[in-house]
Amino acid sequence: MSAADVVDTFLAHLCARDLDAAVALVTDDCEYDNVPIGKVHGPDGIRQTLGPFIGGCTQLDWIVHHQVADDRVVMNERTDRFEMGGRWIELDVAGLFVVRDGRIALWRDYFDLPTFQKAMSGG
Amino acid sequence: MSAADVVDTFLAHLCARDLDAAVALVTDDCEYDNVPIGKVHGPDGIRQTLGPFIGGCTQLDWIVHHQVADDRVVMNERTDRFEMGGRWIELDVAGLFVVRDGRIALWRDYFDLPTFQKAMSGG
Repeated sequence: MSAADVVDTFLAHLCARDLDAAVALVTDDCEYDNVPIGKVHGPDGIRQTLGPFIGGCTQLDWIVHHQVADDRVVMNERTDRFEMGGRWIELDVAGLFVVRDGRIALWRDYFDLPTFQKAMSGG
Repeated sequence: MSAADVVDTFLAHLCARDLDAAVALVTDDCEYDNVPIGKVHGPDGIRQTLGPFIGGCTQLDWIVHHQVADDRVVMNERTDRFEMGGRWIELDVAGLFVVRDGRIALWRDYFDLPTFQKAMSGG
């Protein structure tokens, strides 16, 4: 799989709420950095961060507007949509992924924290 | 010039504080979107937004950590450094550029607004 294929597959697993399949595609030392919030490491760190969040969603639909990649680095511009409590929450993000040996070693998402907090609170 | 070359040249002009040379590389209808703040359009919109800011800087140094591109879309992860009032201000951003006929038609930067405000106020 190309680096872009790894990222596409990873995001598809997340949107299917299959966290096991998703974290199988990250390295043991993977850094997952939500830039304005902070970073966690490894499959367990990602599972602990995303598990409760994804568990609280009835659907996820992450729309990729643009994606460019080389053999190692993938960047995309997305609108991450989450259905929670009967309504859809949307967040515009730009993501960076670095792929090593077919697995994601770095995932860094850039977004505006107040925009996310406002969306979560029904803003 | 490739799309990546156009963006590299554009950013080099900005860092040299040569706004005339920079805006010569954007389309007449260029959209410049600082996502958490808002968007402006065209060379004049960019000039009015960036002119006072760049004029208040004694140096600019925008470090590109990662950049990927195809023939039209360029994305990069940067630390934009500005020297103002004798100190350096840093902001981590992810940028998207769409190039059309050798000029930038869309420039969208993703970052956390409170992080920027805190950096500007000396935090």
